[in-house]
Amino acid sequence: MKTLSNGSVMSRAILVTGGAGYVGSHTVAALLERDNEQDLEIVVVDNLINAHKENGQKKPEAIKIIEEMTNQTIQFYDVDIRDADALSKIFETHSIDCVIHFAALKAVGESVQKPLEYYQANIAGTCTLFEVMRKYSVYKLVYSSSCTVYGEPERLPINETHPTGRGLTSPYGKSKYFCEEIMKDLCTSDSKWMVISLRYFNPVGAHISGRIGEDPAGIPNNLMPYISQVAVGRLKELLVFGNDYPTVDGTGVRDYIHVSDLADGHVKAVKLFSQIGFSGFHAVNLGTGAGYSVLQMVSAFEAASGCKIPYRIVGRRAGDIAANYADVSLSHKLLGWRATRTLHDMCNDTWRWQRNNPNGFKKS
Amino acid sequence: MKTLSNGSVMSRAILVTGGAGYVGSHTVAALLERDNEQDLEIVVVDNLINAHKENGQKKPEAIKIIEEMTNQTIQFYDVDIRDADALSKIFETHSIDCVIHFAALKAVGESVQKPLEYYQANIAGTCTLFEVMRKYSVYKLVYSSSCTVYGEPERLPINETHPTGRGLTSPYGKSKYFCEEIMKDLCTSDSKWMVISLRYFNPVGAHISGRIGEDPAGIPNNLMPYISQVAVGRLKELLVFGNDYPTVDGTGVRDYIHVSDLADGHVKAVKLFSQIGFSGFHAVNLGTGAGYSVLQMVSAFEAASGCKIPYRIVGRRAGDIAANYADVSLSHKLLGWRATRTLHDMCNDTWRWQRNNPNGFKKS
Repeated sequence: MKTLSNGSVMSRAILVTGGAGYVGSHTVAALLERDNEQDLEIVVVDNLINAHKENGQKKPEAIKIIEEMTNQTIQFYDVDIRDADALSKIFETHSIDCVIHFAALKAVGESVQKPLEYYQANIAGTCTLFEVMRKYSVYKLVYSSSCTVYGEPERLPINETHPTGRGLTSPYGKSKYFCEEIMKDLCTSDSKWMVISLRYFNPVGAHISGRIGEDPAGIPNNLMPYISQVAVGRLKELLVFGNDYPTVDGTGVRDYIHVSDLADGHVKAVKLFSQIGFSGFHAVNLGTGAGYSVLQMVSAFEAASGCKIPYRIVGRRAGDIAANYADVSLSHKLLGWRATRTLHDMCNDTWRWQRNNPNGFKKS
Repeated sequence: MKTLSNGSVMSRAILVTGGAGYVGSHTVAALLERDNEQDLEIVVVDNLINAHKENGQKKPEAIKIIEEMTNQTIQFYDVDIRDADALSKIFETHSIDCVIHFAALKAVGESVQKPLEYYQANIAGTCTLFEVMRKYSVYKLVYSSSCTVYGEPERLPINETHPTGRGLTSPYGKSKYFCEEIMKDLCTSDSKWMVISLRYFNPVGAHISGRIGEDPAGIPNNLMPYISQVAVGRLKELLVFGNDYPTVDGTGVRDYIHVSDLADGHVKAVKLFSQIGFSGFHAVNLGTGAGYSVLQMVSAFEAASGCKIPYRIVGRRAGDIAANYADVSLSHKLLGWRATRTLHDMCNDTWRWQRNNPNGFKKS
């Protein structure tokens, strides 16, 4: 809690769980860059499983860089959301007004190998967070969901009324779906809850500064970091999983969205909480509405970077779908938000980040 | 762990979570009554949320009574399964060979009011149990599931290939479905797991001794304890929710199964673990295959008890379905099990328990 110069106590802190991660850190940056209110306090909790902190430093690199860029201080806690006591202390120290909840494990393939770890982190952890929120009468929540909850699309583009939870093939996807169901039930049980579940399509890109971006551990699971690591020479070639899908060129089609657009969507979602009469559970797609194939992404990245991306076509990957893109009309209507950054921006910004930081956040 | 008279150490303990509850206690009784192996050790953990323990006693009434009836000792721990440390100590003390997992909150209506409590107990608790099991290399699990996972039946009778998880209306039902999905994912991730998920239809009745039975706290949610509490004078009349369903007499039809038959099903399931080559996830219905309406149950209970059961027809209850009964062929094929007790047995045994124990396990 901050005491202002006139002696009054300000009471507007946003808790960002997983705020040192990829989408989390860009959202923290967007909150500080785009919010005009001077008394905004950002509190980040992160267990640093997917974030880098230099030895001897108190804060992860991404958070330190955002502090430098915005000339503002971010409260940081190295806390796992399953630790109810540690979380409670944070709610006692800061006047949390709302929570943006990113903290989760997110590698689809790994989740098949380690389901229990995923369910513990993503479900038990989320339930613990909700219990602590309720204990401190904090009922405003933006949740980091995924288009994965739709499973194989019955129709395209997918809008938010598309069935969820059917035919999900990974514990990761199921954990996102289960959490949405839990939040729906919470909202049914108590009208004080306000929940906006943002269903991301495929986040790519990096902050325009080139100073923060995606920094996956090990071999990337997602296309864009894979391409950019090939471009920068960390990986030899791109594997393209299947070129016999019923799409424009046979390769899988996805709705890629710039992470800074995604971050802006979270800023808009938070603003919705102050709208009179707003309550209940709302699921909202965040995408551009346009789909690009793997080979289109490769071409766009080659154009932006000037690098040749060697690739090799291999067989389809189990669980992958042919095409997926969002109906984005609800995000426009409800949040007043639309993606504004182009495919070129996505590639350009990814390349700037990757080129400036060939080893991600690690300094050596 | 027990040391036998010849100095060898026996290593066959069954951990029963929620073993002091309704189905749990009958299963403990059945394990001790029907198992011929003299070295069977039963370890019960229960947090006593739905079980009665007299002040000053170390064990809940149901467990004490089963010890008397079988002249055997049951290890009892007043432990919540969310307490990983306490659970670990139990696994260190006893050589657990397999786990029968009943511990869960189970009131459908209450779950709508208190979703977070249900998800914490039923999902987070179950994941913690699985983590501890894995830590001690215990991979054999019988899970207490429910026909609720089927939602509104697409066809009758329902067999195990019927879709699950669709249109579930309560956090209770969702928690059972989510746990099944988690167990499927566990089995996919590691072939050491052997999981039998028993999908109960509607458990009723009581142990033939009349000494243990269902003892719901507050006004019963289920038909049979409601009827029997009307019979014994604890409640004035039975409310029948809807008589305009497309059934034999307009009232809801369910597949009632005697709790001692259900308990025998668990004994059979445990035996399956010693079958060579058995592994993976198996969902199995436990029902009789026959459906009875509310009014048929009232008549049967009146015949068994000689009491008149006054009832009043009121409107349908949200979320209730018209009819539900099991295809029981898989239970016969896989477990070699069939329900043997009749509707008359169910009513007779319920009445004996209720008449002998008008206040359930409470002595005063």
